[in-house]
Amino acid sequence: MRADRLITDCRLATMVEGGEAYGAIEDGAILIREGRIAWVGPRTDLPEHTAAETDRLDGRWVTPGLIDCHTHLVFGGDRSGEFEQRLNGATYEEIARAGGGIVSTMAATRAASEEDLYASARARLAGLKATGVTTVEIKSGYGLDRDSELKMLRVARRIGREGGVRVRTSYLGLHAAPPELDRAAYVDLAIDDILPAAHAEGLVDAVDAYCEPIAFTVEETARLFDKARALGLPVKLHADQLSDGGGAALAARYQALSADHVEHTTEAGVRAMAGGGVVAVLLPGAYLMLRETTPPPIDLFRRHGVAMAVATDCNPGTSPVASMTAAITLACVQFRLTPGEALAGATRIAARALGLGDEIGTLEAGKAADLAVWDITRPAELAYWLGKPLLERSYVAGRRR
Amino acid sequence: MRADRLITDCRLATMVEGGEAYGAIEDGAILIREGRIAWVGPRTDLPEHTAAETDRLDGRWVTPGLIDCHTHLVFGGDRSGEFEQRLNGATYEEIARAGGGIVSTMAATRAASEEDLYASARARLAGLKATGVTTVEIKSGYGLDRDSELKMLRVARRIGREGGVRVRTSYLGLHAAPPELDRAAYVDLAIDDILPAAHAEGLVDAVDAYCEPIAFTVEETARLFDKARALGLPVKLHADQLSDGGGAALAARYQALSADHVEHTTEAGVRAMAGGGVVAVLLPGAYLMLRETTPPPIDLFRRHGVAMAVATDCNPGTSPVASMTAAITLACVQFRLTPGEALAGATRIAARALGLGDEIGTLEAGKAADLAVWDITRPAELAYWLGKPLLERSYVAGRRR
Repeated sequence: MRADRLITDCRLATMVEGGEAYGAIEDGAILIREGRIAWVGPRTDLPEHTAAETDRLDGRWVTPGLIDCHTHLVFGGDRSGEFEQRLNGATYEEIARAGGGIVSTMAATRAASEEDLYASARARLAGLKATGVTTVEIKSGYGLDRDSELKMLRVARRIGREGGVRVRTSYLGLHAAPPELDRAAYVDLAIDDILPAAHAEGLVDAVDAYCEPIAFTVEETARLFDKARALGLPVKLHADQLSDGGGAALAARYQALSADHVEHTTEAGVRAMAGGGVVAVLLPGAYLMLRETTPPPIDLFRRHGVAMAVATDCNPGTSPVASMTAAITLACVQFRLTPGEALAGATRIAARALGLGDEIGTLEAGKAADLAVWDITRPAELAYWLGKPLLERSYVAGRRR
Repeated sequence: MRADRLITDCRLATMVEGGEAYGAIEDGAILIREGRIAWVGPRTDLPEHTAAETDRLDGRWVTPGLIDCHTHLVFGGDRSGEFEQRLNGATYEEIARAGGGIVSTMAATRAASEEDLYASARARLAGLKATGVTTVEIKSGYGLDRDSELKMLRVARRIGREGGVRVRTSYLGLHAAPPELDRAAYVDLAIDDILPAAHAEGLVDAVDAYCEPIAFTVEETARLFDKARALGLPVKLHADQLSDGGGAALAARYQALSADHVEHTTEAGVRAMAGGGVVAVLLPGAYLMLRETTPPPIDLFRRHGVAMAVATDCNPGTSPVASMTAAITLACVQFRLTPGEALAGATRIAARALGLGDEIGTLEAGKAADLAVWDITRPAELAYWLGKPLLERSYVAGRRR
């Protein structure tokens, strides 16, 4: 077998389901060719090969590169001022009256150049990459007009070209209505104008919405999803974060890639998700920052066989979190996921939540050679430590990053 | 004025009390000479000077180097296996029977060489330094015999010489009794043998104990503190973490530098702390990891004028946290400290908790030139972001780290 690179002297957490915990191989090796895993297995089974380069990892653990499958990484400004005002006693109302909340991020995002948005997103991306991330989903949704939504998505695409990670974009068509339009007019604009324009420019990998009594209704979301379907685009949904608004069931009806947040999803919603093959994306950073007390129904997801992903939800309002291992730790501590579940949620299941289950998320022959190499003695350390630097290096498509 | 270094083109959060929030100076400058701040103030007031080097910081914020005033940074092994077992459903009892808990860390610490302990502590220290820490307190307390306690303290001293940070050691004399001794015999050993030996070798900056119904009594702790007093050493105390056991009052009686944890301290204890000038050291990482629900009595501390510090409590059992900014964020989110309080708790107040209030913790002429330089637009960002890399550089005694 001819290879570009041999990776050896390492332990593998392949994250392949069904065998050892973590799909572990104690003394493993990987052959990489043209950016893909050509062979992976126990070193003793390594086939005859030639490799242009050999990387010996001194017994370190290798996992699939982590996948952050729910972020709002691109935005203007930040909301640290608001964060401080709240802790100094200001009410949400006072902050809203002072121009805070999502409208302040919208204004800053509209005002920012593509270059500014790219630079600020890269600074946050640095935290994700330092914690092993090789694929990031990035949503629009702070522009709230055509030009600004497309600007956000173009910046996301640029991160995919120049940022050293894979990027999947989501057009978050229904996030909030801008102050200059009533909600119905904005729903029309998103569906009839912005989505087709963004899609025509090749900027959209999936379509997303925020379905919640304080945001958009099931009916409005369904109209957006119908349009997505007509364009051949998959959908995902912010569902049941603050109340059970029927979001999970809606996601199931459209066979969404994922329903995200899902703290308040009831058993009926969980059953529907299971039937529709919808991944539950858990966002423990927002849960922490919002001081929520109702965790997602983990036991129901387990019982009904709904796969669970974990993501940072990196965003300026409710989850200023830019560490994927912090998200894993918080999922274990707050939601009682096992480290094995949480790491699957950041790899194999996260890939499914992006429609990339055949491409990334496990160490298997044929998949992209996206790898994270860790200074740890067991995979559970990725869930255990908060803030300890654990990543030794990563590879995207077989190239060191 | 002759200086070794001029730091300019920066905003200063001097953390000096009484004036602007954060002691802020919008356009500041610092002159450094022989490792100390020779002058600090608004750039327009900069005195005539010569400086061998000039560092222009492009408008970045400078704070005092952060001070992590409560850590157990040196230990053998880790407890990620136990963390995983618990999440997989094992009870504390089952884990204890399988040799888990503090005894497993004791065994790993005893078995480790000084070199091993140093290397593993440095890996954790990397997380603290990357989040702006320039001074670390390090406790013994996992050796539980003379040689192993002294070994831990020697490693801590080595970190102070070679690790690029200041170190203050605490002999944690009463942490747990080792399995080979009954508690009374261990208390005698700690007081009559280990403490004098460690002190004679110059290894002890302060004396600490874990006063709690499940650990050591007020009387045992008082005996240790009497010995510390006889040796001229200051004391600090793990107090009232799980119940109000009179720890805060005991700390006050001995004018301890700090009482740490203090989740269950009652108003009487808070009054006593105020009277004794005892700093409350808040440890939000342990609170998160243990899923505690009773936060420390922040309002009582405020009302009675007890100064609050914030620390990581980095340790393998209850707070595997190696990020100082994560501790700050968690203190704000969980305990509702304001960002200003939390940053003071990681600088000016933390210095007091180590008896170094005259030496570090603010940007003032005469103090050590320990600085952290940040890529932020306002100090509150240090509390707001979780996991975003924010540190641009740091200085210890005027030297870049």
